[in-house]
Amino acid sequence: MADSSTALNSAAQYSTALSSTALMTDMYEYTMLDAALRDGTAQRQCVFEVFTRHLPEGRRYGVVAGTGRILDALERFRLGDGELKFLSDRGIVGRKTIDWLEHFRFSGSIIGYREGEMFFPNSPILQVEGTFGECTLLETLILSILNYDSAVASAASRMVTSAKNRPCMDMGGRRTNEWAAVAASRAAIIGGFQGTANLLAAQCYDLKAIGTAAHCFTLVHDSERDAFQAQIDALGKNTTLLVDTYNIEEAVKTAVEVAGPELGGVRIDSGDLASLAQRVRNQLDALGAKNTKITVTNDLDEYALAALQSAPVDSYGVGTMLVTGSGAPTCAMVYKLAERENSAGVMQPVAKKSKDKASVPGRKLAYRSYEYSLADCEHVISGSEASLADYQMPESWKDLLVSYVDHGSIDAHYQGHDAIMNAQAYRAQALAELPITAQSLMKGDPAIPTEVTVL
Amino acid sequence: MADSSTALNSAAQYSTALSSTALMTDMYEYTMLDAALRDGTAQRQCVFEVFTRHLPEGRRYGVVAGTGRILDALERFRLGDGELKFLSDRGIVGRKTIDWLEHFRFSGSIIGYREGEMFFPNSPILQVEGTFGECTLLETLILSILNYDSAVASAASRMVTSAKNRPCMDMGGRRTNEWAAVAASRAAIIGGFQGTANLLAAQCYDLKAIGTAAHCFTLVHDSERDAFQAQIDALGKNTTLLVDTYNIEEAVKTAVEVAGPELGGVRIDSGDLASLAQRVRNQLDALGAKNTKITVTNDLDEYALAALQSAPVDSYGVGTMLVTGSGAPTCAMVYKLAERENSAGVMQPVAKKSKDKASVPGRKLAYRSYEYSLADCEHVISGSEASLADYQMPESWKDLLVSYVDHGSIDAHYQGHDAIMNAQAYRAQALAELPITAQSLMKGDPAIPTEVTVL
Repeated sequence: MADSSTALNSAAQYSTALSSTALMTDMYEYTMLDAALRDGTAQRQCVFEVFTRHLPEGRRYGVVAGTGRILDALERFRLGDGELKFLSDRGIVGRKTIDWLEHFRFSGSIIGYREGEMFFPNSPILQVEGTFGECTLLETLILSILNYDSAVASAASRMVTSAKNRPCMDMGGRRTNEWAAVAASRAAIIGGFQGTANLLAAQCYDLKAIGTAAHCFTLVHDSERDAFQAQIDALGKNTTLLVDTYNIEEAVKTAVEVAGPELGGVRIDSGDLASLAQRVRNQLDALGAKNTKITVTNDLDEYALAALQSAPVDSYGVGTMLVTGSGAPTCAMVYKLAERENSAGVMQPVAKKSKDKASVPGRKLAYRSYEYSLADCEHVISGSEASLADYQMPESWKDLLVSYVDHGSIDAHYQGHDAIMNAQAYRAQALAELPITAQSLMKGDPAIPTEVTVL
Repeated sequence: MADSSTALNSAAQYSTALSSTALMTDMYEYTMLDAALRDGTAQRQCVFEVFTRHLPEGRRYGVVAGTGRILDALERFRLGDGELKFLSDRGIVGRKTIDWLEHFRFSGSIIGYREGEMFFPNSPILQVEGTFGECTLLETLILSILNYDSAVASAASRMVTSAKNRPCMDMGGRRTNEWAAVAASRAAIIGGFQGTANLLAAQCYDLKAIGTAAHCFTLVHDSERDAFQAQIDALGKNTTLLVDTYNIEEAVKTAVEVAGPELGGVRIDSGDLASLAQRVRNQLDALGAKNTKITVTNDLDEYALAALQSAPVDSYGVGTMLVTGSGAPTCAMVYKLAERENSAGVMQPVAKKSKDKASVPGRKLAYRSYEYSLADCEHVISGSEASLADYQMPESWKDLLVSYVDHGSIDAHYQGHDAIMNAQAYRAQALAELPITAQSLMKGDPAIPTEVTVL
């Protein structure tokens, strides 16, 4: 069993551990590094590729999200005394590796799809180039981020399509891990959501935060009227009152009595949302509250949102199904060695031949071709550094790869709030350029095929 | 849109934010606090209850996990300058609330099910008692932790049952959010797993870490033999060699040639695992490597593990399906106000009446009854503080509630490594006390019914 001296015993140690991302990884990344440093292969130049072999069943496309978070995590991929002591005390790596890790900074390069970009089976979403040692260490962390964030952004994108022009808001934090919640908020915005209930996400990424009150606020008061009055006193008449704690009709009546027709909105969180929204709309109109908005929230997913299109709803709060990827909580992305230097110093495409899990050897170029302004094919061109050097794409294709990290230098343009909003806009445009079948909720093939060419 | 001055612009600010859990919450918890402080209801004593209305479809039981992490998070639920400035700059709460938050420490009490305990629909998994203000702030964080951790522990428990006496190892970190991965490792251990690949989890909770090498390690070398030799040089002959990068039969031959019959183990990560394990076992035995273990890893879930029972496998590595709850990535737990002080200072049971989402008013006691040493019913006794005060449980029942926090004082017995191992042992015992149908993978009703009595 584990040696108890390696545990984090105080909140202070825990906080210190939080500031490094270097142990957010599987042990074998470090044991491989250790073995590769001994025999020199750790210094071989390598290209690793992130892709998925298939989309979740019946999905037409995926949306890339998380790359900006990878850049953030890369900045904090440092080993301090705590991390080094842990690796040493546990005997995971030897003395020579500890010395190497002490000064570790990723000095390689990363290219990949934009956040907000559509992806399909075999799309080379990210490629990491550097020494075997430095690229190996990043595997788990990169996959964790891309697999989860892209799952959420992909689900969000389908929901936003179903919601048409009505804003979708992320309220899912409580239904996923507390840190995943923060990543989910960010990914939801990339997928087209307009705001989030999660405050840490709002703080970290400067996102719009939303939310007013829950049922407990009504219940803690002696009457619903007291609760509504208290909320309006604190938040003003433009607030949204939750009207389904007891009886919706009475609540709506009370709400308008207390706030007047300037009431900002009401929220319905249970029952048959379409018919309730219709009744509440009619009641609000009859009470003169014609501008009071209706928000609905109750286990919504893209199918429920599609079913609500004709109901008089103004915005949606989506929770569980957003943060769990609407049935596909991960993207099955993998991180595979595609090209590496041999003992003679020459770069060579490589690939495993495992049954059902074979991959295409070689580094990748990626393009999308169009016919009459609509995408018709994803083109993946695979080869060695040498064979791809002179490749010229046809003029009408779009190059899908951008540079995120150049020899250790991170392009800050892809980090922070603006990058998220750029990704949100990019996703809307890229989806609009796909054949309209991409927007179908019916299960089927990917919206466009992926053609892999080995040069 | 958000005011950009509230964003975290540097790694240092980010690290500081990481050390507090106070913004890992939905905005409405703070707006409710703000409104309740204005009208005095924030000081009303309350009891909130965490429960789920249903298990995932067809599941027979759930396993509680995450409570120890809630205690850790509670210690870090402090608002420093960064959190207060954010809430203030965004106008989420007013000046009076900022003052209140500056000195915020949870001073209430928490009781609940043990980690590792079985739970069913309406089991009162956690009850939080304190003022409305302090209990409200914890809602999102408590639910995030319990919903995810219990989903993973519940899936893990089914897998461990299917694996019989063969150890299961968590290798799922790459298929979920990077922080969720840490929580998943901990929850997997509670569910009966024996180790984890995740190093941060191993560090934070002093867990056994496992892992040796991936396909890229074989591929980066000029030959499979070179890779095996390098791994053995670094990790010794007792290591586990991955044998399915090219041709399994050749790899096994090479592995035993390089390591000799003392080779610790081989790992197979693709193809038809049962028949491959059988062939590899026969080959190893023929080569004299009779003690060399076989580990298999490839999209395993509880059904795949059950199908592998007759194959000569020694241990399992489980990834995706573990960390995504094997089809149920969240537990649908909710946090509901069950009892509160009225304006006269008297505690009263309360509950919302929302359609399909009504809850049972009143604080809860919880017991399990047994017949011939097997559990036959979960008993939830609901009432007011007064009506429950004199309740005497029948002698043969087991009291399911323990005290985690007493008036702000955390029972450290439920935190850290030992608590996890205690929970692991408790889960095995509690599962063994359920009717054997609990261990069935067939979809069906909960293993025992829940009887709710309102006093």
